[in-house]
Amino acid sequence: MTQDTARAQEIAGRVTDFIRDQIIPLEGDARIHAHGPTNAFVAELREMARAAGVLTPHVLPGGAHLSHRETATVLQAAGYSPLGMVAVNVAAPDEGNMYMLHKVATPAQQARFLAPVLAGARSAFFMTEPAALQGAGSDPSMLLTTATPDGEEWIINGEKAFITGAEGASTGIVMAKTPGGATMFLVELPHPAVRLKRQLDTLDGIMPGGHWEVSLENLRLPAANVLGEVGAGMSYAQVRLAPARLTHCSRWLGACRRAHEEAVAYAARRQAFGKALIDHEGVGFQLADNLIEMKQCELMIGWVAGVLDSGSLAISESSMAKAAIGEALFRIADRCVQVMGGTGLTSDTIVQQVFREVRAFRIYDGPTEVHKWALAKKIKREAPR
Amino acid sequence: MTQDTARAQEIAGRVTDFIRDQIIPLEGDARIHAHGPTNAFVAELREMARAAGVLTPHVLPGGAHLSHRETATVLQAAGYSPLGMVAVNVAAPDEGNMYMLHKVATPAQQARFLAPVLAGARSAFFMTEPAALQGAGSDPSMLLTTATPDGEEWIINGEKAFITGAEGASTGIVMAKTPGGATMFLVELPHPAVRLKRQLDTLDGIMPGGHWEVSLENLRLPAANVLGEVGAGMSYAQVRLAPARLTHCSRWLGACRRAHEEAVAYAARRQAFGKALIDHEGVGFQLADNLIEMKQCELMIGWVAGVLDSGSLAISESSMAKAAIGEALFRIADRCVQVMGGTGLTSDTIVQQVFREVRAFRIYDGPTEVHKWALAKKIKREAPR
Amino acid sequence: MTQDTARAQEIAGRVTDFIRDQIIPLEGDARIHAHGPTNAFVAELREMARAAGVLTPHVLPGGAHLSHRETATVLQAAGYSPLGMVAVNVAAPDEGNMYMLHKVATPAQQARFLAPVLAGARSAFFMTEPAALQGAGSDPSMLLTTATPDGEEWIINGEKAFITGAEGASTGIVMAKTPGGATMFLVELPHPAVRLKRQLDTLDGIMPGGHWEVSLENLRLPAANVLGEVGAGMSYAQVRLAPARLTHCSRWLGACRRAHEEAVAYAARRQAFGKALIDHEGVGFQLADNLIEMKQCELMIGWVAGVLDSGSLAISESSMAKAAIGEALFRIADRCVQVMGGTGLTSDTIVQQVFREVRAFRIYDGPTEVHKWALAKKIKREAPR
Amino acid sequence: MTQDTARAQEIAGRVTDFIRDQIIPLEGDARIHAHGPTNAFVAELREMARAAGVLTPHVLPGGAHLSHRETATVLQAAGYSPLGMVAVNVAAPDEGNMYMLHKVATPAQQARFLAPVLAGARSAFFMTEPAALQGAGSDPSMLLTTATPDGEEWIINGEKAFITGAEGASTGIVMAKTPGGATMFLVELPHPAVRLKRQLDTLDGIMPGGHWEVSLENLRLPAANVLGEVGAGMSYAQVRLAPARLTHCSRWLGACRRAHEEAVAYAARRQAFGKALIDHEGVGFQLADNLIEMKQCELMIGWVAGVLDSGSLAISESSMAKAAIGEALFRIADRCVQVMGGTGLTSDTIVQQVFREVRAFRIYDGPTEVHKWALAKKIKREAPR
Repeated sequence: MTQDTARAQEIAGRVTDFIRDQIIPLEGDARIHAHGPTNAFVAELREMARAAGVLTPHVLPGGAHLSHRETATVLQAAGYSPLGMVAVNVAAPDEGNMYMLHKVATPAQQARFLAPVLAGARSAFFMTEPAALQGAGSDPSMLLTTATPDGEEWIINGEKAFITGAEGASTGIVMAKTPGGATMFLVELPHPAVRLKRQLDTLDGIMPGGHWEVSLENLRLPAANVLGEVGAGMSYAQVRLAPARLTHCSRWLGACRRAHEEAVAYAARRQAFGKALIDHEGVGFQLADNLIEMKQCELMIGWVAGVLDSGSLAISESSMAKAAIGEALFRIADRCVQVMGGTGLTSDTIVQQVFREVRAFRIYDGPTEVHKWALAKKIKREAPR
Repeated sequence: MTQDTARAQEIAGRVTDFIRDQIIPLEGDARIHAHGPTNAFVAELREMARAAGVLTPHVLPGGAHLSHRETATVLQAAGYSPLGMVAVNVAAPDEGNMYMLHKVATPAQQARFLAPVLAGARSAFFMTEPAALQGAGSDPSMLLTTATPDGEEWIINGEKAFITGAEGASTGIVMAKTPGGATMFLVELPHPAVRLKRQLDTLDGIMPGGHWEVSLENLRLPAANVLGEVGAGMSYAQVRLAPARLTHCSRWLGACRRAHEEAVAYAARRQAFGKALIDHEGVGFQLADNLIEMKQCELMIGWVAGVLDSGSLAISESSMAKAAIGEALFRIADRCVQVMGGTGLTSDTIVQQVFREVRAFRIYDGPTEVHKWALAKKIKREAPR
Repeated sequence: MTQDTARAQEIAGRVTDFIRDQIIPLEGDARIHAHGPTNAFVAELREMARAAGVLTPHVLPGGAHLSHRETATVLQAAGYSPLGMVAVNVAAPDEGNMYMLHKVATPAQQARFLAPVLAGARSAFFMTEPAALQGAGSDPSMLLTTATPDGEEWIINGEKAFITGAEGASTGIVMAKTPGGATMFLVELPHPAVRLKRQLDTLDGIMPGGHWEVSLENLRLPAANVLGEVGAGMSYAQVRLAPARLTHCSRWLGACRRAHEEAVAYAARRQAFGKALIDHEGVGFQLADNLIEMKQCELMIGWVAGVLDSGSLAISESSMAKAAIGEALFRIADRCVQVMGGTGLTSDTIVQQVFREVRAFRIYDGPTEVHKWALAKKIKREAPR
Repeated sequence: MTQDTARAQEIAGRVTDFIRDQIIPLEGDARIHAHGPTNAFVAELREMARAAGVLTPHVLPGGAHLSHRETATVLQAAGYSPLGMVAVNVAAPDEGNMYMLHKVATPAQQARFLAPVLAGARSAFFMTEPAALQGAGSDPSMLLTTATPDGEEWIINGEKAFITGAEGASTGIVMAKTPGGATMFLVELPHPAVRLKRQLDTLDGIMPGGHWEVSLENLRLPAANVLGEVGAGMSYAQVRLAPARLTHCSRWLGACRRAHEEAVAYAARRQAFGKALIDHEGVGFQLADNLIEMKQCELMIGWVAGVLDSGSLAISESSMAKAAIGEALFRIADRCVQVMGGTGLTSDTIVQQVFREVRAFRIYDGPTEVHKWALAKKIKREAPR
């Protein structure tokens, strides 16, 4: 675990107990479909979390967030079950949205758009656009969606893709081009002008509501729905950026710890060629590599959280962590599958799901290559002449 | 492509045309479920293949098989679509079963158990046993299923797992311990003593009939159902072993070629940071690595096929190929996903399926580690003293 | 840098200045041979370090050592030049020997055997034995050298190999089998019964005195030369073990930082195919990988140093760090060579030397595989049953 | 071995015998310095090779070259000892120079410049220029050296770097810019206007004459010394390119086979932790990886040689092979070092030298990254639109 306050340890301990006792027994529940747990099931899980005092555990009563280091501790605990992170309401994109709204939204907007999410409703972040249209993906400057002023209102039009949790969300945050830059808008969902066109069938499958293609068709919003300043959307995205990357890392590190434990247990139990798998160096070395890489992930998370806690935006630090941790967690999950052989390919073990989720994570929040590209730019800028 | 005869090239050309024109348009068909295409859909596809003259294309009229080199050419063509390999009836486990029955079964057995499979029926190979019971997996010596003589008959009891295609198969081959060794038995399916207990939910999903846990409950078979000699089951498994490994490699190389082409097309089309993805070295180098590794796979397949054609069992050569190609194809498929970003995670592209299938392939037919273990043993045996 | 005290930062700052101003200009000195700087040159460098107040900078006046975290900071600074770590007297094996003698030796022994080393004399650790004799290497239990009691004295016989710095050392520490275990003995060098047989020609080349095969031929030592308790030699080796691993990591991380800076400067300057190398992603991504891995090394060093400072022997933690950091630093150095092309292969850049030294480091202090083997054992011990 | 003619096998057999019986015993000869064997020692070795009938074994009496496939077989045999490739006169740059002169030089030029090299004299290829001047390296279009017509003569001026074998060579081939392109010139060496400025101290060390920085200072050459057509120098470089890349691959594959055999023998002999190293999967798997990768290298060499034999320039095929084989051979050599532990770091085994040579090979004849860059360009050119 990263360096902890007693407070964070205490919260993480409660989250751990809740997940172990109440959530893991539900991981095979039939209400979890290929596109994630149903909205009704999510609501039920969050009721359980509320009752256990672990709903939205990284936000204190009153709305203050734990420090980034503390949050890392709590989210690693929550990630121990993919369903657990959903249950306690620290999953993407909600967690990142809560953070940004906390930082940027007015009190009135917080009451209307943030408070329900803190209480267990869901939210969606309408940023990514279809690749087929050459819309915004890794390169946010390619934003195609427009918001046009019309009297006191804005009219928003555009196509969005990979909108996680769009179905069932109550709060939407929409990024659109406006004169002088990009602007974020808040919208209550569902909304007739926010049309869910198609649910994508993706390799990952834990995020409630799945991933959607969405059309924004003459979405009219009043000025009160502008988040922060007009034209400042990209700078708010930066506020959200590094913390959201980091909580992704924390959650999936937690999940990989679980996968590793399953693989260790399997390898200690299963015999082949005259001894337990774990006694074969070909297996034992893979588990040793897991141990090393999980520690490196934990250390990098702690480091970046510390940088964030110091007040920095941690843009390049979080790029380093996202690139390194994304790849490392995938190697860990992949080794767990491999160690478990055929069993590792089945849904009889959480390992298979973790493998799929972590594969997606190498792309979500910026593919590894985009982070390396940004780091190379930075190295160039700082190179001696 | 590997070195070809005109005959193999001609057949592969017809398979290629058939898949491009008739099968690829059906890849999104709703009759393909998480556990593979439905039996009815498979039957329909095979009718199409028969009509196009490409059903079971690696077996000549009269029953002779193409050479291993020729087969490699044809199966690489068939693998271009995962559904294609099913359609033309060269998929696992049928292709390996056909080969073994052709080599070992009596004419009467061939008429009864092989001929339907050649004509498009399906078969299953009951070898693997549950890990939870410490049954046979990578280590075949751990076989627990028993066949006990009872007058003129044998009574077979045991638990099997990961029995691919068990549902809907008409021919079963069962491996069981008998006095003096292990023996293979033939059984017509479905059979009341062959109880399908549970369909596994696996990462891969193209094999018709999916993967099953099966109980053999006092399965009574007459002596006529013994394949070859009593006690010689392991040696027949060896006959099947290397060719089956190799055709797996050929099929999935074909599929990875397809995935690579999709990734190239995407990278040439999609813009980011001011230029096409393919103009970013971070992407272009991944595609170059694919090019290199696909060529290495092709060369290894050609080499092992040549060894088999020379009459060798090619045990260690096929271990080298399976280990190397399994890992290489996974890297290729993984790079294709990565290059395509979010799109690569969706079922909008065949890349995602190829990724899942090839992940499983690293475990099926012996995990990479088992092959390296066998190779290390061989190196030791041949080391200078 | 790892978390620092002001004291460590101040010392490290002085070391940095000294190395930059006085040592780097001497890196091409003709008195550095294939087997390291000559003894006379080392003496001269240490005179310079003494004058600059940076000789043996990790040991305080009075003999107390800096904390492990502080030491890590100082040694990373010293490692910035391979010659620098020699100059300021923090190189292997002296640094590890100083630590162990400080912990275990009696005051009289410290005066006689430690004080000179703190003042800039050199020492050697006679542990490793020839592989050809199946002597102690990675597996210390294979120790062949014996010490036999003879009245008040011990008579030591055996063959040692890879004895770093044997030529020119004034203090020797000899590990030998004794009744009831293994024992360490102290010896003043040179000594006629400690015969330097052959200097090994190795890939690395910075350690003064090089690496030697040594015969111990009826080496007679009085009881006063026993370090600590008879039979407790292995436990003292454990005291030395983790700190020595860690300082190795710190020194070579410092050296890799230097190599990386050279590679960055080269890549920013050198043009190819129409732009600076650094503008090619194929180069920039390698430098980004360096940045990430240097940070991971730094974090692991800080973590293990903290564990040591807490009073633990940090056996498995230091195994994790040695395995991970050894491999990471090699990748870093290798990328630096590759980025610099032909220039990186020449002694015109320190990069080439760092590459050679770090290659050796993957084997010194336990090859990576031995650490993974130990970690796998630990995972097994702690596995759930 | 690649597919062979009886002729190639017979020649390779003789080369193998010669190297085993006469060259390997000389590998530790004191006349081999850091910059390679002395010129006198090379002359002596080639006298031995001539006496054994294996001097320049890939060129038939009369001057015809073996086919590329045959050459691959012979050079793999020659590479079994780094000194062996020198002894039998198939080393770089001579072998590539012989090939190009055979293809391009006039009969008169062949008599004057090629015949001595075939008979055991040495040659140098003056192409590369200093990085510090932004001269030609991986990007040949950056050529700075000029040749200016002056009546019937050309006057050549420029700086060259990394000129292998410049000292002691009798034939030089100089690339220089001329009106309309680049031109190659032939020059008898030593020549007062070809000034050897500085011998580089490089990681590798087998090439006779070492690597030099050279100044061309008003080098006057008559028209008869122009190789082929004025302005066609780059196209001749292309003729030399792929075959020279391939023979590099063949030679170093031979050397890696040797290193692997040494590592296997060591691992079979050396005990640790209760069994032979080879019985540890952590070691055995590395040796298995070597086996697989050596086979892949052999197959790629055979493939590219076949493409060359079919009349193609094999530019992209040889890029694929150079990139893949350079990296693979390095991994192989690196594993051999690692398996042998401390011993692998010493010159007591050829493994250490092979490691250094193969490290350099990843850069010589185009760094891996340049080949991937070229392949990515090709993939883009051929991408569907």
